Amino acid sequence: MRCGHHLLVALAASLRAMSYEAPMSNDEFRSAGHEMIDWIADYWERVDALPVLSQTKPGDLRSALPTSPPQGPEAWADIMSDVDELIVPGITHWQSPNFFAYFPANASPPSVLGELLSAGLGVQGMLWATSPACTELETHVLDWMVDMLDLPDRFRSGGSGGGTIQDSASSGALVAILAARERIAGQFRWDDLVAYGSEHAHSSMLKGCKIAGLRESQVRTISCDDNFAMDAAELRRAMREDIADGKRPFFVQATTGTTSSGAFDPIADIADVCKDLVAWLHVDAAFAGVAAVAPELRFVNDGLERADSYTLNPHKWLLTNFDCSLFYVADRQPMLAALSVVPEYLQNAATDDGEVIDYRDWQISLGRRFRALKLWFVIRTHGVEGLQAFIRSHVAMAEDFAAKIDAHPSYELVAPTSLSLVTFRHVDGDSANERIRDSINASGEAYLTHTRLNEQTVLRMAIGAVRTEQRHVDALFSLLAMLA
Amino acid sequence: MRCGHHLLVALAASLRAMSYEAPMSNDEFRSAGHEMIDWIADYWERVDALPVLSQTKPGDLRSALPTSPPQGPEAWADIMSDVDELIVPGITHWQSPNFFAYFPANASPPSVLGELLSAGLGVQGMLWATSPACTELETHVLDWMVDMLDLPDRFRSGGSGGGTIQDSASSGALVAILAARERIAGQFRWDDLVAYGSEHAHSSMLKGCKIAGLRESQVRTISCDDNFAMDAAELRRAMREDIADGKRPFFVQATTGTTSSGAFDPIADIADVCKDLVAWLHVDAAFAGVAAVAPELRFVNDGLERADSYTLNPHKWLLTNFDCSLFYVADRQPMLAALSVVPEYLQNAATDDGEVIDYRDWQISLGRRFRALKLWFVIRTHGVEGLQAFIRSHVAMAEDFAAKIDAHPSYELVAPTSLSLVTFRHVDGDSANERIRDSINASGEAYLTHTRLNEQTVLRMAIGAVRTEQRHVDALFSLLAMLA
Repeated sequence: MRCGHHLLVALAASLRAMSYEAPMSNDEFRSAGHEMIDWIADYWERVDALPVLSQTKPGDLRSALPTSPPQGPEAWADIMSDVDELIVPGITHWQSPNFFAYFPANASPPSVLGELLSAGLGVQGMLWATSPACTELETHVLDWMVDMLDLPDRFRSGGSGGGTIQDSASSGALVAILAARERIAGQFRWDDLVAYGSEHAHSSMLKGCKIAGLRESQVRTISCDDNFAMDAAELRRAMREDIADGKRPFFVQATTGTTSSGAFDPIADIADVCKDLVAWLHVDAAFAGVAAVAPELRFVNDGLERADSYTLNPHKWLLTNFDCSLFYVADRQPMLAALSVVPEYLQNAATDDGEVIDYRDWQISLGRRFRALKLWFVIRTHGVEGLQAFIRSHVAMAEDFAAKIDAHPSYELVAPTSLSLVTFRHVDGDSANERIRDSINASGEAYLTHTRLNEQTVLRMAIGAVRTEQRHVDALFSLLAMLA
Repeated sequence: MRCGHHLLVALAASLRAMSYEAPMSNDEFRSAGHEMIDWIADYWERVDALPVLSQTKPGDLRSALPTSPPQGPEAWADIMSDVDELIVPGITHWQSPNFFAYFPANASPPSVLGELLSAGLGVQGMLWATSPACTELETHVLDWMVDMLDLPDRFRSGGSGGGTIQDSASSGALVAILAARERIAGQFRWDDLVAYGSEHAHSSMLKGCKIAGLRESQVRTISCDDNFAMDAAELRRAMREDIADGKRPFFVQATTGTTSSGAFDPIADIADVCKDLVAWLHVDAAFAGVAAVAPELRFVNDGLERADSYTLNPHKWLLTNFDCSLFYVADRQPMLAALSVVPEYLQNAATDDGEVIDYRDWQISLGRRFRALKLWFVIRTHGVEGLQAFIRSHVAMAEDFAAKIDAHPSYELVAPTSLSLVTFRHVDGDSANERIRDSINASGEAYLTHTRLNEQTVLRMAIGAVRTEQRHVDALFSLLAMLA
């Protein structure tokens, strides 16, 4: 009844408006698209002159926008004028060569073209069957990355494991937690499960555990050594204590390049503990993992051949725009058991035959974009050697910067320089460091963020933006010297 | 020690390769970008002549790609030639006007330009502070959508609720489940929690419950009435039974426009049950919700003023390319309690002051793209009236198609036509329907998928692609008539 009524109402309406005319024809798209490409190229050329950290106040943008949406179409030129006048002043310029905060978000020209092509094709890669090339290119490029980074063979798609692209390392950590839980499902009460990470593990680990239904009391924080790396002996002690209490340690997240200081947890030692006490080892190398493209930096892979899962982000430091986080597993079965739900409307011959990968079962969401295109474009335009040169140039600039900091009477290094991340502080204490950070960020000349190490406020300087050159790092150092 | 050694190794390497030269200069980006825009416009012009469902076999693409990545840079022209020769034949053309499978994935010209701009700016919207305009434009456009769709005021950002953009309705359902669980945390053993959806609820609900740590036995499937809508009396009975058994019903997912047939669960009746028995009501309108842009179709909002959360996908049927799924909550507190984890390196003055929204706490991942741009572009280029015309034209085409099916002696409608979704079958039984589906899909002329209703194989015809016109729907009907 209800639906019959709906049908009549809809029919009446449809008679009033039978035809839809697109407000932007293909030809208009060509012209607006060319302009947009040029706008972006211009933006990249001028972005080093813009204040890196947006100087806007809460509510500034909203108060400049009309409270109601337009009834009729607006001209493209007016929209782009708002982009210039309202959006650009309201953003923090992550693509500025003077961006040294957090970890960077790489958006190189070929990756942006890959994102554009992905949007234009507009395919869904949830199943192999919904767009075979979307799945197969992803599998292929993830196998290429195993070669390029010299990752363990068990992460190749040909065996029991394989890799996929997640939106972020947060999602990778969550998938790892779910697979770890699934592997021992039925054997233990879930209230007894315990997960472990160091005090410098990324916050997404705790978030992932909470999402998976662990309470905060089921997540242990393991202390670190003087270099801010996890103390593996302390991990073993904590896990044994929990076992003695009738708990079930099931998941350990180790970090290769922590967010705060870029510390390297001792993966091999942690793997020993995980093997002895039967826990899943997830290694988070979101920032540092891609450094392995350069053979002399492959210490970042130490111990990795014994990890159950691994995550690293080309969108942080391999020239690929967000989102592009790689996630590898050694054994995909527990992950598939945790995440596979197959309703009738998604059944198809290829899936039934078991010959194909359906990446829907490797992630939280069902739908997925064609993200492999951008990574493929980046690898092919650069070649392995081009990617090596990119990583090496950043490492060299960071070492040079660290040496200057070390030589300056008012500054000191706080942790070993880690690839392209330098952690340091002014010797005068927390408020001096906060003042320096705020002055630099308010100046618009550069942007850096802080963390806390040894209960002190510490400045972080992360090199990774696509367009950062030696002169930008030199300018930051001059600013620091002036503020000292 | 370890890190000191690393430093020396890295330094030596860096001396060998101090400088990185981008393989694609800004000028080369301009020229490759203009070509890419034209490539996409050309693609959209020719896509209706391509076989909709990819005719490729498992492994076809991989066997055509080099097993190893290139050492040196490759020419852009070679890459684009591979796009033409390897990628295009390997994809299913979701942007084809002859795509009637699943639900569509809209990629209109202005939305693609929004995605391009988002990639070029490359900002992170995890915190207000990391790019204020990214957060404020999203809040603003989500409030606009409340106006445009006449959604309940409680979903506006000004009060206790608000909206955000998720990657998909799967993620929205998961966030709703987590918020619902959080709302009663501490009061019940999590093993006693029970969630409810109809037999036609989307598979992402079960997946979300599993992720959140519920076992399949904690998820109930409620039966449906003759129109495939949830039986609210049956829901009440099941929840009461569980309460009598010492369980705690905590979450109900109702659907406005199910995936299989577009059925409308009786939201008001279900809300009564949820109120009486104190459960969170999440309404999934992934496909149908956007229809409310047309006032005469606002029956899709019936009962919504009593929902705790709501999700709907402009990437399905409102001209915005994937991903763009809107998620609204009436009370954001339990969601924030479930998802907020704030490490030192993300602390900042704006967050501390509590004046701003940090969307990181509204989603699973930490990182997020500037997705509001594309929706803003779509709304502004079309205006509300343009969006109404789009929805109405599809509803009209679906009604016309359904009338022809109804009049055909060999076909019958299986469920009430729901907006732009028609479910129907050949009267000769399952194998006839499978044969017709496979013949159409193998022909490349059109693509449609199946489901099961009343234990019968049923064909689904979903209109929603940006470029579908009456002639494409007529061609599909002719094909069906020929195959009858």
